[in-house]
Amino acid sequence: MTERAFQDYYPDDVSHCYGCGRLNEKGHQIKSYWDGEETVTHYTPEPYHTAIPGYVYGGLIASLIDCHSTGTAAAAAYRAEGRGMDTEPALRFVTASLHVDFLAPTPIDGPLEIRGKIKEIKGKKVIIESTLSAGGKVCARGEVVAVKMPDAMKPKA
Amino acid sequence: MTERAFQDYYPDDVSHCYGCGRLNEKGHQIKSYWDGEETVTHYTPEPYHTAIPGYVYGGLIASLIDCHSTGTAAAAAYRAEGRGMDTEPALRFVTASLHVDFLAPTPIDGPLEIRGKIKEIKGKKVIIESTLSAGGKVCARGEVVAVKMPDAMKPKA
Repeated sequence: MTERAFQDYYPDDVSHCYGCGRLNEKGHQIKSYWDGEETVTHYTPEPYHTAIPGYVYGGLIASLIDCHSTGTAAAAAYRAEGRGMDTEPALRFVTASLHVDFLAPTPIDGPLEIRGKIKEIKGKKVIIESTLSAGGKVCARGEVVAVKMPDAMKPKA
Repeated sequence: MTERAFQDYYPDDVSHCYGCGRLNEKGHQIKSYWDGEETVTHYTPEPYHTAIPGYVYGGLIASLIDCHSTGTAAAAAYRAEGRGMDTEPALRFVTASLHVDFLAPTPIDGPLEIRGKIKEIKGKKVIIESTLSAGGKVCARGEVVAVKMPDAMKPKA
């Protein structure tokens, strides 16, 4: 795995996302890495991230898949340009669409692993397929269409 | 609109969902109601529910659409059976799949409105289409396939 997480390369002014921003003190602050041709992140739910007692609520699962996928999209785009994530111009992706299939209830009492694969990368769009596993069992599958952040969304300096 | 929210009829042992459980003190505790043939809920994001600064993060949007839709599914199922939500047996739905199209950045500085429509109701399955609006503008569209909670998921007494 790479040493520094994708999210740690995001410029400060776009690092406040509740799911993945390192500057959001109340957020999940997920950290995603390359692992060969796939990407991976781990997250341990809090006891209150309940759906039905004993299981993780779907919104957290969707959020983890979403943010891991936009991070994966950025990393894939840098790689496609043959440059490191510490080079300019910075690339940041947002979600155009998110799909999650909940295959089995996700146990809340342990770490979750989310793995991403690049399905397509073309122009400003990257499509990422992912799985979310608990204890080695795949509990959800995701597909995210990520697009390069429009200039209009960028925070004003 | 109806006076008591769908979620207020959920049995205590399945009322801990982070998105919609009235017994989850740390959760969003959304409240969904009939409004004619549609269902509606409102939620005001916290300042830390950020994506890019100024906008709501996608995981919250997904979570609100998800929980409003499972609530809508339950309400629709009771209605299809011609009985009130205060009658037995209790009906509770979980999410089989969730799809969200993010159409425009969702401003964080005000209440969000999520409206649901029953697209299909058949056997144990209900499909709900929804929109999420901010300031009267639709910012996201969702589709949820909800299924009656399997017995295996029910908390043990």
